[in-house]
Amino acid sequence: MFLKNYWYVAAFADEIAREPLARTILGEPVVFYRTEAGEPVAFEDRCCHRHAPLSLGRLVGDNLQCGYHGLTYEPSGTVVAIPGQTTVPNGGMVRKYPLVDRWRFGWIWMGDPELANPDDIPEVRFNDHPDWSYVGGYLHMDCHYMLLVDNLMDLTHETFLHAKTIGNVHVAETPLAKVQPGSKEPLKISPLQDLVDTKNSITATRWMIDIEPPPLYAKSGGFEGRNVDRWQLLHFQPPSHVWLDAGVAAAGTGAPEGDRKEGITHILYDGITPETEDSLHYFWSFPRNYNIEDKALDDLLQTGISNTFLEDKEMLEGQHALMKARPDAPRIDINADAPAVQVRRVVDRLIREQAGTPSPDMVAAAE
Amino acid sequence: MFLKNYWYVAAFADEIAREPLARTILGEPVVFYRTEAGEPVAFEDRCCHRHAPLSLGRLVGDNLQCGYHGLTYEPSGTVVAIPGQTTVPNGGMVRKYPLVDRWRFGWIWMGDPELANPDDIPEVRFNDHPDWSYVGGYLHMDCHYMLLVDNLMDLTHETFLHAKTIGNVHVAETPLAKVQPGSKEPLKISPLQDLVDTKNSITATRWMIDIEPPPLYAKSGGFEGRNVDRWQLLHFQPPSHVWLDAGVAAAGTGAPEGDRKEGITHILYDGITPETEDSLHYFWSFPRNYNIEDKALDDLLQTGISNTFLEDKEMLEGQHALMKARPDAPRIDINADAPAVQVRRVVDRLIREQAGTPSPDMVAAAE
Amino acid sequence: MFLKNYWYVAAFADEIAREPLARTILGEPVVFYRTEAGEPVAFEDRCCHRHAPLSLGRLVGDNLQCGYHGLTYEPSGTVVAIPGQTTVPNGGMVRKYPLVDRWRFGWIWMGDPELANPDDIPEVRFNDHPDWSYVGGYLHMDCHYMLLVDNLMDLTHETFLHAKTIGNVHVAETPLAKVQPGSKEPLKISPLQDLVDTKNSITATRWMIDIEPPPLYAKSGGFEGRNVDRWQLLHFQPPSHVWLDAGVAAAGTGAPEGDRKEGITHILYDGITPETEDSLHYFWSFPRNYNIEDKALDDLLQTGISNTFLEDKEMLEGQHALMKARPDAPRIDINADAPAVQVRRVVDRLIREQAGTPSPDMVAAAE
Repeated sequence: MFLKNYWYVAAFADEIAREPLARTILGEPVVFYRTEAGEPVAFEDRCCHRHAPLSLGRLVGDNLQCGYHGLTYEPSGTVVAIPGQTTVPNGGMVRKYPLVDRWRFGWIWMGDPELANPDDIPEVRFNDHPDWSYVGGYLHMDCHYMLLVDNLMDLTHETFLHAKTIGNVHVAETPLAKVQPGSKEPLKISPLQDLVDTKNSITATRWMIDIEPPPLYAKSGGFEGRNVDRWQLLHFQPPSHVWLDAGVAAAGTGAPEGDRKEGITHILYDGITPETEDSLHYFWSFPRNYNIEDKALDDLLQTGISNTFLEDKEMLEGQHALMKARPDAPRIDINADAPAVQVRRVVDRLIREQAGTPSPDMVAAAE
Repeated sequence: MFLKNYWYVAAFADEIAREPLARTILGEPVVFYRTEAGEPVAFEDRCCHRHAPLSLGRLVGDNLQCGYHGLTYEPSGTVVAIPGQTTVPNGGMVRKYPLVDRWRFGWIWMGDPELANPDDIPEVRFNDHPDWSYVGGYLHMDCHYMLLVDNLMDLTHETFLHAKTIGNVHVAETPLAKVQPGSKEPLKISPLQDLVDTKNSITATRWMIDIEPPPLYAKSGGFEGRNVDRWQLLHFQPPSHVWLDAGVAAAGTGAPEGDRKEGITHILYDGITPETEDSLHYFWSFPRNYNIEDKALDDLLQTGISNTFLEDKEMLEGQHALMKARPDAPRIDINADAPAVQVRRVVDRLIREQAGTPSPDMVAAAE
Repeated sequence: MFLKNYWYVAAFADEIAREPLARTILGEPVVFYRTEAGEPVAFEDRCCHRHAPLSLGRLVGDNLQCGYHGLTYEPSGTVVAIPGQTTVPNGGMVRKYPLVDRWRFGWIWMGDPELANPDDIPEVRFNDHPDWSYVGGYLHMDCHYMLLVDNLMDLTHETFLHAKTIGNVHVAETPLAKVQPGSKEPLKISPLQDLVDTKNSITATRWMIDIEPPPLYAKSGGFEGRNVDRWQLLHFQPPSHVWLDAGVAAAGTGAPEGDRKEGITHILYDGITPETEDSLHYFWSFPRNYNIEDKALDDLLQTGISNTFLEDKEMLEGQHALMKARPDAPRIDINADAPAVQVRRVVDRLIREQAGTPSPDMVAAAE
């Protein structure tokens, strides 16, 4: 079951171009392209005639012509021409999906198009900000999308899975300072603070004071040999958007109170889009606010983050396979699960609401 | 559901030789070989002892010896020797299939062997004709066999899928002149005219008068820079045999009336054999009646046709995958579907008759 | 259905080391490692927290630390540490499996651990014997484990499948001398004789007197150009252990009566361990009692046997695929099946007993 009435990242904006692009989103085949004026277009990747993949067709001006028998679709998904005849029968159309360019991504709405409001697109604003430097990437994973959300909402895994890059022992050993649904408070000193939606957000913060910097930050931020104050300020928004305000500052220079002048900040955004029940698209961006002209650092981070996420991919795919083989195997919760457990609770409630089933909370409130 | 009591192409005749050949036909594993005298043999590729694939065995004279425990089968499919014992128990046999060499192919009968009459083998006579030059080939496709029949019965797809080879805009823009079940009339000027079986055949013809020749014909027939009259005379016979009398003649020299002296003719034969419900064997031959000694032209056509059919393969496999994922997705018919729709009607009726279920027509006739 | 309360070969002993090893046994994912003191350890390869594969973790002293969130398991399978907290919740453990080093293998017990008695481990004693030289190997096969047991209990297949190595015509043409359940008698002159368990064993012997030696033995034993007396003394123990006392002696020197002074003996042991219902692990060893210092002969036998078993793998995987496609296809028995049929009878009875269903024999005895 997928949450339908939400914006999902469908592609990097520059992937949507003058050649059709095929991608499965929430189990549905979608074809993407861009009009001559640059408008992004998404509709069902299944010709209404004989179900040929429209992504094997070609663009004719602003329209997409099926590569099999030449039915021509305008950007609305409506057939406007059929070779050898002058009329289009009823049913000559495919489902069009709202698609919006923003923050270097193309955002798709797979639910009721009447409800699609571009104002609801999650803000990934530092991807496009003049004071920040952008890197980003894509990874396909053969696992359920919530496993990657779980992963990101419990960063203690960095210590074990990513010892070579961003992990060190402090993440796992430092308890979360705050895990809070529905409050802006934990993020009050973060550039992400205004994203908090008090109804469905989850935030979680961890501060590691006066510690050795992890390898990647030590190198990229020039903190080798010096201790730092390190923060991880996590923010989740349904259905599967995760931000991480992560950085370090010279120890004792006031970072926990909001002074980042001696520090460096990265804002990781994770755009997690279900492909099927057993696979996902992972779009990530990792802008930073220091050395923003340093192309070598761009490359270092791009490569480092990509390698880090490949470690996650191996683990999550192994986990998914074991869960599929024996879904009812017992499991325990640990302290570090608190944010992920709260996220699951929000998502489960929203899925029940979408399905029209009252949640336990709603039932309790009604009694 | 497959139509059983029909001849299907199982192999090129020269594939059936003195080494066992394994191929699945209509969902059944079959082993093929040839006796020392050259007789083609086909039987079940599953040893009656412990179900080892007989195709892993070896020929001993006219017999096939299982490669596992040495049971020896004569061409009738009967076990004639078991190592270490002198008798063969009841049940020591596998199912033999009628198999006949003709027209460069090996033809197999998967139904009731009592009904197998070699006189019913479809005629592909120009494959072996002294005035015609032969080229042919094989392609495996992961799609239902009727999707390839549909493909061939609607050649408007040439315009879009095969623009680089045999397509040009005229095919899609020219309506079919005639689509006719059960009549020899539309093919009356074709070398295929005597194939028409008035009960179960479908024929469809298209004439494109005074047009630019498509790239492949322009090159092979020497029509560069000249206009032509082009024809496509299609003939379908159950279960899945399709012929195409296709050619061009210098424009205005009388081709539509039957004068092909200034023209070139190809007879494409498509032997489409279901492998499983989700895959097929495609045997094609493409004899021509001009420049028949031109080996370079043979190579040009062999390569050109093969590349053309690879375009079909990609499209049909994409179409099949989409249909499997959502079989009930809505679809529309277009004018060009008329021959394919009529073919489907014939095949559906024959399948119902095979299953013993009266067709709507039969019910109506009885009322 | 697998027989649970038995020892199975899980690995070569030297595969179980200071890096976690993942292997599926009887459908269950298992992780193997060795403590600093050298004790072999096996437990469930599924973290009790979020089902990550523990085999992706790392050893910390004698413990295995999950590579995802750092839960630390001691060799008993119990969690002894969770990062960021001081207590371990109930359920903080995975299933531990008894695992014993013996005869160069690691032996695992997948059933009730209370019943695991290392004295019941099958004897593969010549693997470690100073008068014998060891070679061994591993093969994975995509087939049901009983197909490999069948294979080994009917060596007539050597004549057909292994003509190039160990087969010659005599194996298939010589009837089995004795096939006997529950009697030590057929093996009375074999080094294996004391293995016979009179309740569940099956033994079968074949003597080929005064024959040409098969190619591999002729070469390795120096019998080129001389006739030999050849023996194959087979022994099966549930669930799927097979031994073969196989060798040749100079013809007429008394081998059938027990005098092997002019002969050479190999003891093939087959450790067949189901991976899933459709795949198996095959561990084999092939010690010999002649030229035991000859490393070139070790290599010759290692390569020869490996290549021989690859021939079996191809055949058994083909057989398995055909049986899965049509499980109810008819089949016949032949004389050579007698040992395999008796083995199947024993295994079927033990499976019924395990399931608590009385066997036909038990029903008959009770009436």
